[in-house]
Amino acid sequence: MTWRPAPDRGFHPDPTRRSIARTLYATVRDLPLVCPHGHVDPALLADPQATFGTPTDLLIIPDHYVFRMLYSQGVPLESLGIPSRDGTPVERDHRRIWQHFADWYHLFRGTPTGLWLDAELHDVFGVTERLETASAQRIYDQIAGRLAEPAFSPRALFERFHIETLCTTDAAHDALPHHQALRARGERRIRPTFRPDAVLQLHAPDWREQLERLAAVSGSAIHDPASFIRALETRRAWFKALGATATDHAALTPYTARLGAVELDACFARALAGRADATDTAAFVGHMLLEFARMSAEDGLVMQLHVGSWRNHNEAVFARFGPDKGADIPVATEWTRNLRPLLNAYGDDPRFRLILFTLDEATYSRELAPLAGHYPAVLLGPPWWFHDSINGMRRYLERVVETAGLMNTAGFNDDTRAFPSIPARHDVWRRVACDWLAGLVAEHLIDEDDARAMARACAVGLARRAYRLDA
Amino acid sequence: MTWRPAPDRGFHPDPTRRSIARTLYATVRDLPLVCPHGHVDPALLADPQATFGTPTDLLIIPDHYVFRMLYSQGVPLESLGIPSRDGTPVERDHRRIWQHFADWYHLFRGTPTGLWLDAELHDVFGVTERLETASAQRIYDQIAGRLAEPAFSPRALFERFHIETLCTTDAAHDALPHHQALRARGERRIRPTFRPDAVLQLHAPDWREQLERLAAVSGSAIHDPASFIRALETRRAWFKALGATATDHAALTPYTARLGAVELDACFARALAGRADATDTAAFVGHMLLEFARMSAEDGLVMQLHVGSWRNHNEAVFARFGPDKGADIPVATEWTRNLRPLLNAYGDDPRFRLILFTLDEATYSRELAPLAGHYPAVLLGPPWWFHDSINGMRRYLERVVETAGLMNTAGFNDDTRAFPSIPARHDVWRRVACDWLAGLVAEHLIDEDDARAMARACAVGLARRAYRLDA
Amino acid sequence: MTWRPAPDRGFHPDPTRRSIARTLYATVRDLPLVCPHGHVDPALLADPQATFGTPTDLLIIPDHYVFRMLYSQGVPLESLGIPSRDGTPVERDHRRIWQHFADWYHLFRGTPTGLWLDAELHDVFGVTERLETASAQRIYDQIAGRLAEPAFSPRALFERFHIETLCTTDAAHDALPHHQALRARGERRIRPTFRPDAVLQLHAPDWREQLERLAAVSGSAIHDPASFIRALETRRAWFKALGATATDHAALTPYTARLGAVELDACFARALAGRADATDTAAFVGHMLLEFARMSAEDGLVMQLHVGSWRNHNEAVFARFGPDKGADIPVATEWTRNLRPLLNAYGDDPRFRLILFTLDEATYSRELAPLAGHYPAVLLGPPWWFHDSINGMRRYLERVVETAGLMNTAGFNDDTRAFPSIPARHDVWRRVACDWLAGLVAEHLIDEDDARAMARACAVGLARRAYRLDA
Repeated sequence: MTWRPAPDRGFHPDPTRRSIARTLYATVRDLPLVCPHGHVDPALLADPQATFGTPTDLLIIPDHYVFRMLYSQGVPLESLGIPSRDGTPVERDHRRIWQHFADWYHLFRGTPTGLWLDAELHDVFGVTERLETASAQRIYDQIAGRLAEPAFSPRALFERFHIETLCTTDAAHDALPHHQALRARGERRIRPTFRPDAVLQLHAPDWREQLERLAAVSGSAIHDPASFIRALETRRAWFKALGATATDHAALTPYTARLGAVELDACFARALAGRADATDTAAFVGHMLLEFARMSAEDGLVMQLHVGSWRNHNEAVFARFGPDKGADIPVATEWTRNLRPLLNAYGDDPRFRLILFTLDEATYSRELAPLAGHYPAVLLGPPWWFHDSINGMRRYLERVVETAGLMNTAGFNDDTRAFPSIPARHDVWRRVACDWLAGLVAEHLIDEDDARAMARACAVGLARRAYRLDA
Repeated sequence: MTWRPAPDRGFHPDPTRRSIARTLYATVRDLPLVCPHGHVDPALLADPQATFGTPTDLLIIPDHYVFRMLYSQGVPLESLGIPSRDGTPVERDHRRIWQHFADWYHLFRGTPTGLWLDAELHDVFGVTERLETASAQRIYDQIAGRLAEPAFSPRALFERFHIETLCTTDAAHDALPHHQALRARGERRIRPTFRPDAVLQLHAPDWREQLERLAAVSGSAIHDPASFIRALETRRAWFKALGATATDHAALTPYTARLGAVELDACFARALAGRADATDTAAFVGHMLLEFARMSAEDGLVMQLHVGSWRNHNEAVFARFGPDKGADIPVATEWTRNLRPLLNAYGDDPRFRLILFTLDEATYSRELAPLAGHYPAVLLGPPWWFHDSINGMRRYLERVVETAGLMNTAGFNDDTRAFPSIPARHDVWRRVACDWLAGLVAEHLIDEDDARAMARACAVGLARRAYRLDA
Repeated sequence: MTWRPAPDRGFHPDPTRRSIARTLYATVRDLPLVCPHGHVDPALLADPQATFGTPTDLLIIPDHYVFRMLYSQGVPLESLGIPSRDGTPVERDHRRIWQHFADWYHLFRGTPTGLWLDAELHDVFGVTERLETASAQRIYDQIAGRLAEPAFSPRALFERFHIETLCTTDAAHDALPHHQALRARGERRIRPTFRPDAVLQLHAPDWREQLERLAAVSGSAIHDPASFIRALETRRAWFKALGATATDHAALTPYTARLGAVELDACFARALAGRADATDTAAFVGHMLLEFARMSAEDGLVMQLHVGSWRNHNEAVFARFGPDKGADIPVATEWTRNLRPLLNAYGDDPRFRLILFTLDEATYSRELAPLAGHYPAVLLGPPWWFHDSINGMRRYLERVVETAGLMNTAGFNDDTRAFPSIPARHDVWRRVACDWLAGLVAEHLIDEDDARAMARACAVGLARRAYRLDA
């Protein structure tokens, strides 16, 4: 018998609930994919010559969800072909890397990465045997063969995946050449997102360089907070003209507080003089989040805030391989006090929308659902990163909706740089959402009409509305 | 087919479990309601002429659970008739407000408020169609008609609801005229609860006024901590004489620490001089919680402690509409260190009983169940506020009972000012408790005899015992 | 009908899931017990004359899980025969104590202690009626009779329980006479564990005494950090020679930071002079955890870290009865920042293994699973203490495995001093693990082959591997 992911995966086994879940899922399975937050490289879709490379290039080397799991079991990153930045030689034989991966594939049992990979292998590439030591090279050949076909180019998959909207994430000083190219050919489904984090890190060694790139692209000198803010406003308008409907901001904490003009000037001057420290950055970020909220109220770009990741926790891995190597570890997060200045300034403003993402699930029911269930501006983003999993989604739905109501959530984001995993990720969300709704129906807490409307909202409606894509 | 809430709502769909849950629920469904903590206005039951007003007066305007959900979706509080305190005009047409409410009723899908409202509409007022845009005015008429009947007066509903005990919550300086009137007519089921929070807020603008009211009602001048404490003791005796068996205390944190006599005098003197600040209040509250524990050990009033709500988070809403407008947001809470001084002083005292309530579910299994499972004085209050929901109750039972044992919990509180929702709230608790017990039986962790005893304890026994109502 | 614990206890009632769970459980139920962390007194197994005493000596007096529950309901510890250290007289009639226990046995409904006790009574002692007021003395007689038989000696039960490995926990200065005796008679299944906590408490009144015992047993004077560390290294070698494969460390927080040489010397000198305070201890523990990690990397002993218990929370109980009286209460724990210095120093070292235990379940998905899912050295210990329960295990598996993968966990520990409860504790884990896996199979997230391999790993394989017992 050929292998395939089970059609009922992710549904509770109770026959009543499963039957309802199946019915609901059938109504949303084939809806278009709304992808309002992610990290796909726009070059992949802008450049007609772009390809995915080898199976290893596609599925292993760029995906820290994958290689960090092998690393945690003692497999050196070098042996997985992860490019080093210090000149350490790394494995170049992609078949050997693939074999490693297959040998360790059992590590992904019961994990979302395993679920996505299985779905990609089967649904995207037509693999019909389990990936394991013995099948590794056959499957490599099969995927490599497919990737050589025109039907498996990035653009072709984009069409096949039925993506309605795909938002990328782009630095404030990015000139967005790929987005320009996409607009030029009439492509309106792919949109940039304005992410200015790098220009806020006053004490980072490369801050001046970041600032100069911002000045250059915005066409005006930056010498103080006022000119800095004007440059950012200019860039936002540029992003908006190229289709952006949202901005994105990451911070270690959601601290917000306005600096006085004198303090702000002094802080910025210290940075220009190369004397800013981490305290300056924290204060500046806290101030700028208020500024970005003001800008969002004025220009209508939806503000996303991703909080709580301690980046590059492992210094040795960072030194050798750089950022985004599976070594970001969450920290506990406090929203109620930290976000109060921002919410008191803009939380009631009907023009403003703020979508919050947490890595601290303890805050779902304690802080985030109550905030989203009160402030008109606040929506709660979907379960993020480590929590983008079957149980993570269940915890989210069970802890958030009773207090916030489903309408104060923002639907689903795939948040991925792994383009071919996008359908698999949405599929997991749709399955879990339908199964959760089926549970509510089976417990007689909502009726089937409610459930159908809510399933559709989960699949597409909430995301369109949250990101102002339904205008 | 006419609409009605499903008889099996809240029960898991597994046939074995559901069948046990139904059987257990049948044994407790009609037991009297024990309501040892809540916010019903005693005037409603003391004054024979009291009425509920219009359906909008009854179900929307006083209920921040309801209007905060509409507000979170951008519906102005003004349009819902919420009285402003700054003169802002608000909607006065109760039918229009009701229509708004019905138009947005889908927001309550899957929320406890929706569950309570459905039950009230059907069970109390006999509504047999779903509340929605089209049915809004018909349902308004029907409820308005009922409210005009003598059988729907507050007193009549009190009888119909089969309430065994209803405790109100009353300020320390309240002269309790309504409770006096109730006692005078022989009513022993309605009891006051002593809540002295307002006189502890040393730095609040109205503290002197609060203090003077306390002095006036206790009949003696208050000029120092000793006279302050004597006044409170006098008031407690007065409450007790009018049937009180408990006190209630709210604080942002459970910080407790005794102040030295000199410090305490200085702190109180600063307050009398109008120079106290938030730090003084925090220290004073921490000290007074120890004093209140001592008083409870001496006079036998059960001490309740509700911790972790950041009140009036939204300044603009507070300025215009005042407190209790759905803008209270929880904060993380630390119990182990904070409560240690109090528990070391009184936690082993057999005369003392302390019931703890949290908004931070992370503390259920981490701190509260271990504390309740050790200290003789400590019981754990039911899931509170945002957590008074089906999933909130399930999380509570699953996280608390294995460590604390069911007998170290305090049964259920409805904690509501929405009088006609009381039966619906108890009903949800009884359903969830029976369904949880049915799960334990179906997993062979307890037997059916155990489950019957535990179901009865959950429904009435634990609350009676916790609040010393079974004497 | 005679009483017995139900064969299907702990399995979800859904027929599909239950059937899979039963099948999986049958494959692991009778596997040997791997017990790599616990608190059994080695004398019990080393001394051929050792006995368990009365049923009360066996099941009540030494077990704080049991008596703290009765204490929490107002039963004095004196009446339960808990030895006082201040001369307070305590009950000496073991039949009366047993009767108390039976009278209150309903407190354990739905608790893990109840589950373990039921299994011990039935499976170990052959009791076939429920323990309750009426049956108490009959059951006492029955157990007392059994305990008098040779087949119920500690050594006989050790064989009957089919224990493959049993690690005890032993102070750094313990001369390990019992372990020497066990090795001398060829017993290789029982191993010591090196736990040096007591010699790190610089400000404890008995620190000098602890230090002198360490110096005496290691055969060299300790006068500074270097000689202190040398003594510890000597002891580790001694433990290793007697079969140890692991060390154990408990701390209130996982704070780690290296002290400079001058600071370290000064801190140690203050301690030698009797002038160290709690701050010194915290700094010293933070430093020593790094030293212990280094030693583990060098000598291969697996490092265990148990964090977050506020010991002896109740001063009155501590004064009268001493430590380990059910009055230890967890606190919130921060791992990401605190453990970073240690992980940056040793977390990538293939020789080093660190097993983390938490009492703060909020950290499972937020910090611990991401750490274990990245650092090669880190494994996550099983649900600990209050969380060693059916729901505790379910929460652990649901929150940890999706991110960390099962292979980054350390299997099960019984962590008990209650020797005859060991099989019952492993049995609960095996049941819950199989039921969880059955859920994954029933939801089509893993297949039955995966599930069988994972069940075996949960039962024995992960523990053997984590503690280097499979060498």
